[in-house]
Amino acid sequence: MIIVIKEDQLNKIDEIKDRFEDKHEVFVHNNRIAVQGITRDDLLFEEVNAAEQIIEDVPKSVQGSRLFHPEDTIIRTAHSVIGGDNFTMMAGPCSVEGADHIKLMAKVAKAGGATVLRGGAYKPRTSPYSFQGLGLDGLKFLRNAADEFGMDVITEVMDDEHVDLVGQYTDIFQIGARNMQNFSLLKAVGKTKIPVMLKRGMSATIDDILNASEYIAAGGNHNIMIAERGIRTFDNKYTRNTLDVGAVPVLQKLTHYTVIIDPSHAAGHTEFVTPEALAGVAAGACGLIVEIHNDPAHAFSDGPQALKPDQYLEMAQKALAVRKVVTTPVNVKSEVKL
Amino acid sequence: MIIVIKEDQLNKIDEIKDRFEDKHEVFVHNNRIAVQGITRDDLLFEEVNAAEQIIEDVPKSVQGSRLFHPEDTIIRTAHSVIGGDNFTMMAGPCSVEGADHIKLMAKVAKAGGATVLRGGAYKPRTSPYSFQGLGLDGLKFLRNAADEFGMDVITEVMDDEHVDLVGQYTDIFQIGARNMQNFSLLKAVGKTKIPVMLKRGMSATIDDILNASEYIAAGGNHNIMIAERGIRTFDNKYTRNTLDVGAVPVLQKLTHYTVIIDPSHAAGHTEFVTPEALAGVAAGACGLIVEIHNDPAHAFSDGPQALKPDQYLEMAQKALAVRKVVTTPVNVKSEVKL
Amino acid sequence: MIIVIKEDQLNKIDEIKDRFEDKHEVFVHNNRIAVQGITRDDLLFEEVNAAEQIIEDVPKSVQGSRLFHPEDTIIRTAHSVIGGDNFTMMAGPCSVEGADHIKLMAKVAKAGGATVLRGGAYKPRTSPYSFQGLGLDGLKFLRNAADEFGMDVITEVMDDEHVDLVGQYTDIFQIGARNMQNFSLLKAVGKTKIPVMLKRGMSATIDDILNASEYIAAGGNHNIMIAERGIRTFDNKYTRNTLDVGAVPVLQKLTHYTVIIDPSHAAGHTEFVTPEALAGVAAGACGLIVEIHNDPAHAFSDGPQALKPDQYLEMAQKALAVRKVVTTPVNVKSEVKL
Amino acid sequence: MIIVIKEDQLNKIDEIKDRFEDKHEVFVHNNRIAVQGITRDDLLFEEVNAAEQIIEDVPKSVQGSRLFHPEDTIIRTAHSVIGGDNFTMMAGPCSVEGADHIKLMAKVAKAGGATVLRGGAYKPRTSPYSFQGLGLDGLKFLRNAADEFGMDVITEVMDDEHVDLVGQYTDIFQIGARNMQNFSLLKAVGKTKIPVMLKRGMSATIDDILNASEYIAAGGNHNIMIAERGIRTFDNKYTRNTLDVGAVPVLQKLTHYTVIIDPSHAAGHTEFVTPEALAGVAAGACGLIVEIHNDPAHAFSDGPQALKPDQYLEMAQKALAVRKVVTTPVNVKSEVKL
Repeated sequence: MIIVIKEDQLNKIDEIKDRFEDKHEVFVHNNRIAVQGITRDDLLFEEVNAAEQIIEDVPKSVQGSRLFHPEDTIIRTAHSVIGGDNFTMMAGPCSVEGADHIKLMAKVAKAGGATVLRGGAYKPRTSPYSFQGLGLDGLKFLRNAADEFGMDVITEVMDDEHVDLVGQYTDIFQIGARNMQNFSLLKAVGKTKIPVMLKRGMSATIDDILNASEYIAAGGNHNIMIAERGIRTFDNKYTRNTLDVGAVPVLQKLTHYTVIIDPSHAAGHTEFVTPEALAGVAAGACGLIVEIHNDPAHAFSDGPQALKPDQYLEMAQKALAVRKVVTTPVNVKSEVKL
Repeated sequence: MIIVIKEDQLNKIDEIKDRFEDKHEVFVHNNRIAVQGITRDDLLFEEVNAAEQIIEDVPKSVQGSRLFHPEDTIIRTAHSVIGGDNFTMMAGPCSVEGADHIKLMAKVAKAGGATVLRGGAYKPRTSPYSFQGLGLDGLKFLRNAADEFGMDVITEVMDDEHVDLVGQYTDIFQIGARNMQNFSLLKAVGKTKIPVMLKRGMSATIDDILNASEYIAAGGNHNIMIAERGIRTFDNKYTRNTLDVGAVPVLQKLTHYTVIIDPSHAAGHTEFVTPEALAGVAAGACGLIVEIHNDPAHAFSDGPQALKPDQYLEMAQKALAVRKVVTTPVNVKSEVKL
Repeated sequence: MIIVIKEDQLNKIDEIKDRFEDKHEVFVHNNRIAVQGITRDDLLFEEVNAAEQIIEDVPKSVQGSRLFHPEDTIIRTAHSVIGGDNFTMMAGPCSVEGADHIKLMAKVAKAGGATVLRGGAYKPRTSPYSFQGLGLDGLKFLRNAADEFGMDVITEVMDDEHVDLVGQYTDIFQIGARNMQNFSLLKAVGKTKIPVMLKRGMSATIDDILNASEYIAAGGNHNIMIAERGIRTFDNKYTRNTLDVGAVPVLQKLTHYTVIIDPSHAAGHTEFVTPEALAGVAAGACGLIVEIHNDPAHAFSDGPQALKPDQYLEMAQKALAVRKVVTTPVNVKSEVKL
Repeated sequence: MIIVIKEDQLNKIDEIKDRFEDKHEVFVHNNRIAVQGITRDDLLFEEVNAAEQIIEDVPKSVQGSRLFHPEDTIIRTAHSVIGGDNFTMMAGPCSVEGADHIKLMAKVAKAGGATVLRGGAYKPRTSPYSFQGLGLDGLKFLRNAADEFGMDVITEVMDDEHVDLVGQYTDIFQIGARNMQNFSLLKAVGKTKIPVMLKRGMSATIDDILNASEYIAAGGNHNIMIAERGIRTFDNKYTRNTLDVGAVPVLQKLTHYTVIIDPSHAAGHTEFVTPEALAGVAAGACGLIVEIHNDPAHAFSDGPQALKPDQYLEMAQKALAVRKVVTTPVNVKSEVKL
């Protein structure tokens, strides 16, 4: 249950908290207090009186809910402001391939307006015999490249044991689709203050991803982004996954966390990445995370879905133009008399 | 197999046709001839010599294929030019509800730039006890309204027995998702010259819809549009279906038919229709078909997904702006020296 | 709403019917009367008093519901009793291929205990250029073969125009998965008294198929079987579809119609047909419909999923043994003292 | 590539291994040697001569493949022999709820023929605010109960940090569906010798699960079971997941690991658990893992899908009878002369 407290009764918040926090989960945000597992009947007369509104139908993922936290979450890193009306471009290669290569990619990414450099150092691969990433070296190369170009770093953390190590090099944790319900990992990043981009699992429902993000929030870390990267459906002959653009406005209605689109893993083929990126922006996403490579045929991983530099720069320009259309109000002076 | 004939050898086309058409399906388009079920070894030496190119890996839906027909199909109706660089808006209520109401809706649709008026007279409903449409009266009301506002009509035809009747009132046949593989119906509309908008079935693969459209082409009717209207996936709690925007560039690569987006049936809820419409346009669709209603709460069917007039007018304006971004080339003067 | 009338008040049934049938759909089955679209408040005091039970939460597909018709539907044809505790085997080739071949197949089918001979005369094929069936000749060959071996015929009807014709030759109509929501066809077979086997659409929910069967019942034909034949999911690399065995007990709980399993279209590969057939029977299905062929490599259609005669005979024997296990009560004398 | 070495040339195995193991993954099983990433042209003349067979089309998950390891894997624990012609029952509550309760459940499980006691001590829950398990206490209670009744223990391990601890109490690790591609965890259990039951992810393809199991094998642990527990599809109104019984024969064809059915998580509702269990056995599964509870309404988790003791005992008896049908050869003396 969420109780919205009247402006002149805010002292009631602490009283309610004290009364329930022993036996219930209690969360406070500005003039709102959420108490899990109680009903209106558990409130005292004076508490009901102090309420501007009592919301009884509340999802389990309450801290992520707009009902509890109506305004957008804005995440501030050294070089980016993410969420709300801002638009954030994140780009880079699938895998960090070497010190020089990642710098080259950083240069390209930045030229397209990216403020965040992506690159995998620890790679979750379907087969144990595939390239598993450069590990610690990869982290260092990535950090150096980002610093040289004045960018933030986003990179994947694959297990709770690596959270401390990866956290020393990255500005944003990425949690991959396959780990979306690795609850131990979610709890571990939830104990840090480092922003987290949580990718939607291949068959995760909207409720699933909101509950997964709540694991992070439950630990005290509220700097959360949710990335739609395509879901698994009955047809993957021509695209790797099905980009669920409808998830963008749905998530934005339900949660205050920032919604990002990953068109690269959705499309799976370079030629479809730009249309899917623009679609995601048109649907309202606040950012894109895309894979780029100067020589996709020889990329260490996921070459077939990488944008070449010129393709990326064109996409980035169009994405900004679409974003402008979406965020610019139109005046409809209806001449239709009904 | 498709044989592209050299410009100075076009007379070979008739020879090849004569030689194979008794035992094989043979199709000719400009300087291309497709012969089903043969291989290069079946060609004479002189026929091979006349070929500019021989394409052996050809889909069964050959007439719809870009390999056979590289240029876009352009459909011309009384009031619309559909396909290619054109953008077509189709709008109207889910069901035709009466003579006056459909005129009111036509007025609104036109104000938003629609040149095609939609409305159902025969309704495919999940339950036999739901409203099944006004039938012939509905067709007449729809025709009158469109004529009054100088618009084309699109309406659904549900079975082969109705093709003649509905064909007397409509400019474009709509075939619904549930009938996408009603092959008798596809054959029946294939025998007419009336343009057809074929909606993708709820679990139809890209290949399935291309094969279904080939049934229409096989009858001689090549005025075909394909509508993506959302597919069935594991999550339909917040949207009715999952709009597969990736299908837009995929279809445009594979086929010359026009690709239209139906955001209303995909979203299923008014608040998500505009983001999905814009996403479809951003992905490259040449047109939209949307449901509108002045009083959704009292609509005869599908009220929850109808745009109100003002919402529709705003969406239409933004859709045109997104379309402009998509179709305007950008100059990327890359300053990134690799 | 369904009203169960007390045994000594059965005359109330006609009164209630008379009172509501002008404005509501009304159905009567034994001592039960269903009235669509009313609530308890619409009943008179004496009507409420005559009720043994009033069921307000009723699905739209009311005639098919166990709530309205608790006992199993039993279908009696010349050579079969279908449903309830009976077990029915239906077998034959995918397509009728000729007069002699279908007789050979009938002989094999009968040897495995089949009382119903299947075979397609009108074939719904994904591509317009694939074999479309022998048509009327196929119907005649099929009828003759069945008659010679004392069997019933089941064959597919693809459109409403063919219902009369096909009805002259078959004992059971089959409606294919792609036509499950071809409502014109459902209405047409609903006007006959010929039993119908309705196959579940590739992405039809349980509610969808119940509503589709209600279209048949609404026309007055209650001799309905529902066939689970595999649904479309994200993985079809090794099987053609995913057999949803859970649908068997679910359907049996919700509806009184007979549930049949088609393992051939689910498996798509001969080697997996028998395990899926046995699974279907173990889950409680009252019958099987399987494709058989003496020479699968040269079958006109669907050869890769046909059982050869010996494979079929083995499967049939095991299916009966599994059926016996399922229908034989076990005595659990629990020695576990809790 | 897999090379099957002639019986009289087995010394070649070490030579080939020595020659390739520096730069390639090399695995040996009896007279078979698999070398990843080479082709026939990389072999010496004498090596080709020593080969009885050279298999070039080999999946990435080579160690799990029947091509590399044709015979069934048999896992021997203190109280169970799992795989091959054996049938193994595993039963117990979803969560360990207390020392006495788990003993009671062990008694029931054993009475139904179970040799393995299941119970969760660390629970992966969708919401962070749901019961997360008794932890170490749960492990101890579980171990004691199993020991008292002469049973093995299976329990879930959720992250790599817990592998050592859980390994001290369990005979079999369970890896849950949500962690199927938690590669760090797979690597960690792969370093132990404790048998692992890997549950198929909700949207994991057959290839995905084979690749995931290869992560365990790559670490040296070959005691692997794969559990089918239902996949996520478009319909979960009446069952929690869709049991993919076709996966049983498919997996058994492709891999030598034991295939187990979990009907409880597939069905999600007690009334459908037994039909799904029997279907899984009929499809050929070598074992079942089911949830039982004496008082489902008050279970700590997943009560709605638990079998009560009597339901479990009846199911177990029928499962054995179905297993007998499946494994007993039938003599088909075909009287059908073709």
